[in-house]
Amino acid sequence: MKNVIHAKCVKCGKIYESTPDLTNCTCGGILDIIYDYDYIKTQLTKEKLASRRDNSMWRYRELLPVEEPTPAPPLRVGWSPLYEASRLAKELGIARLYVKDDGVNPTASLKDRASSMAVAKAMEAGAKVIACSSTGNAASSLAGNAAAAGLKTYIFVPSRAPKGKVAQLMTFGATVISVQGSYEETFELSKQAIEKWGWYNRNAAINPYLSEGKKTVGLEIMEQLGWEVPDYIAISVGDGCTIAGLWKGLKDLYAIGFIDKLPRLISAQAEGCCPLNRAIETGEPWRPMEENTLADSIAVGVPRNADKALMAIRESNGLVVNVSDQEIMAAQKLLGRTCGVFGEPAGVTGTAGLKKLCEQGKIAPDATVVSVVTGNGLKDVANAIAACGEPISIPSDMERLLTAFAENGIVVD
Amino acid sequence: MKNVIHAKCVKCGKIYESTPDLTNCTCGGILDIIYDYDYIKTQLTKEKLASRRDNSMWRYRELLPVEEPTPAPPLRVGWSPLYEASRLAKELGIARLYVKDDGVNPTASLKDRASSMAVAKAMEAGAKVIACSSTGNAASSLAGNAAAAGLKTYIFVPSRAPKGKVAQLMTFGATVISVQGSYEETFELSKQAIEKWGWYNRNAAINPYLSEGKKTVGLEIMEQLGWEVPDYIAISVGDGCTIAGLWKGLKDLYAIGFIDKLPRLISAQAEGCCPLNRAIETGEPWRPMEENTLADSIAVGVPRNADKALMAIRESNGLVVNVSDQEIMAAQKLLGRTCGVFGEPAGVTGTAGLKKLCEQGKIAPDATVVSVVTGNGLKDVANAIAACGEPISIPSDMERLLTAFAENGIVVD
Repeated sequence: MKNVIHAKCVKCGKIYESTPDLTNCTCGGILDIIYDYDYIKTQLTKEKLASRRDNSMWRYRELLPVEEPTPAPPLRVGWSPLYEASRLAKELGIARLYVKDDGVNPTASLKDRASSMAVAKAMEAGAKVIACSSTGNAASSLAGNAAAAGLKTYIFVPSRAPKGKVAQLMTFGATVISVQGSYEETFELSKQAIEKWGWYNRNAAINPYLSEGKKTVGLEIMEQLGWEVPDYIAISVGDGCTIAGLWKGLKDLYAIGFIDKLPRLISAQAEGCCPLNRAIETGEPWRPMEENTLADSIAVGVPRNADKALMAIRESNGLVVNVSDQEIMAAQKLLGRTCGVFGEPAGVTGTAGLKKLCEQGKIAPDATVVSVVTGNGLKDVANAIAACGEPISIPSDMERLLTAFAENGIVVD
Repeated sequence: MKNVIHAKCVKCGKIYESTPDLTNCTCGGILDIIYDYDYIKTQLTKEKLASRRDNSMWRYRELLPVEEPTPAPPLRVGWSPLYEASRLAKELGIARLYVKDDGVNPTASLKDRASSMAVAKAMEAGAKVIACSSTGNAASSLAGNAAAAGLKTYIFVPSRAPKGKVAQLMTFGATVISVQGSYEETFELSKQAIEKWGWYNRNAAINPYLSEGKKTVGLEIMEQLGWEVPDYIAISVGDGCTIAGLWKGLKDLYAIGFIDKLPRLISAQAEGCCPLNRAIETGEPWRPMEENTLADSIAVGVPRNADKALMAIRESNGLVVNVSDQEIMAAQKLLGRTCGVFGEPAGVTGTAGLKKLCEQGKIAPDATVVSVVTGNGLKDVANAIAACGEPISIPSDMERLLTAFAENGIVVD
């Protein structure tokens, strides 16, 4: 990899050669991939990018940590749409708002960006099997992306994992091991099995390449905005890998001179589970929290990528905001009604946070903001049902329709 | 519209001016939009297309029935990925297979193509409200695409409509009227309301523009194949609008000289509801059938676009094939395992039909085939759960894992 210098521990600074099967530093710290930006500048220009027809995250190959001969994995991940949301901007009282819908990825979440990278690196490592423990989007995106590439997957889930998610994994041909115990026990068994059989490890907080996949969401936002830097980018935060990846992408672009400033990040967490935001607010080290939120994809009481995430929020002079489950479900409807975008609860938490900050007067009315929707609402229909209430219910009779409209205050234009 | 000559009834041949609010012919027949291909040839070249960065169905504007100033509706519909599925081709015993995944559209089905067109034509008609009656993908795609464009929707569903789908509609801000009665009664009430208030009518078998939106799936397949015509295109068939649209797109390309032959269509229906395929097989007029299939999106006992669909299948010298629910669910797993594509039951019925034809020796081993997946598996997780069986369930213990692998015949490579 001519574009990569090495990997470096974010905690102790120890240097590692960037082999495809890197995991954490011996000190327990997470590694960061360090690039040779001078070299990359000779390889990549805005014009070159603009002429590319590859509408996937792999259009940014010069900024990705893969060997030249490594093929892009089969599923078309990334290059999700960035919508200008003028009606929503007006409702929130800001000048300009864009919504990035990452729910249209192949397995319907931003996690596909990390899994696509995992598959590429597993192929470089000569692995035929990838494993992870997860109940959520990471698992389904790994199973789907690996299946398309002809790799086997072993996925460990706690027995409380929803049946729908297990069915999706099994449809992708994953061998699913349901562990009778907590998530911690599930993780422990997966760790032993990965060690025993030497499977490739897809865990975003252990494998340093995965946030390099996630960073493409930041690269895309900037290219789609014509390199005009917004004032803020709002995103939901769970274990911290996604916001750290987003920030890495933005810093890459700054380093190669594609953008001349950096936006401020808005880190949105659920009130019932906000260990990272609490650390920023109090200035103290993060401490575990309970996982009291229906936004399951960000219900992470022990964030595994706290270091990179906290650094990203601080470095960007970011804002943090915690929202209630009620505010999350209100944001889901708000995005649906004004933008036609249906996000899962964790997916719309960034928008919920932005709304709250606007109401608190913390965002200037002339601001330009991007809000990232990280997953599709079809992933969790149960909560949408609970939030929506009941439709009008009548027999097939025009008189009854007129009465029902009147009773519900519906005025037909 | 310089590219459109007029609309013409497929039944009696009566000619209509192509106003945006066209519905059926006075004889009850469905209208077809007739283009001026000589004019289009002067406007569109393969090179021009290749240089376009618009990765949506609207890249084919010269072939679409919209006025020049009409903007493309906001949601990014179409330009879904076409995957070469070499492992699946091998399993089926054919030379080359491509899978078109239309489940990654904004509301997760091919119906978005029709709804995007509906929104464009509604804007041309000056309408502020669009209405339809449907419980399925048409309803959610209309609600989402209209919400993004700032148009109101009234959607009539029978009271049996699944709560999840109703919640999705309500999230998009649609006014949902749940009608206590059959689908027929629901349709009747919607018809009266549409007439009373003059709402724009989004019904694929009444509004002749909608299959013009759907035809973009055919345009894309051919452009993505570099204009190399496959031997067959397999697709599931319900009310007939989709296969008719697909065929229209292919014929358009033939008419303007972009392709020099036409593929044969494979019309796949469910055994429990196959009125159109039965008509082809028997040579008799189609007759209503019961709706005995779990593939709800194609459970159409009274197909509303029979004429165009039957013409398309016959004109293409097409094959028809009916598959059982069991074969449909097997195809869902087959596509998931070999391609990483998770389709809803109706979405994978084309692949199920292709598999059956291959097994029957009706497809030559040197054939090139495209199979269209029309909707996302996340739309109907319940059936996937039923089809998948149970995962391995054990405590967090390596010995138990080894035993479980042995018992289940799992050999770790």
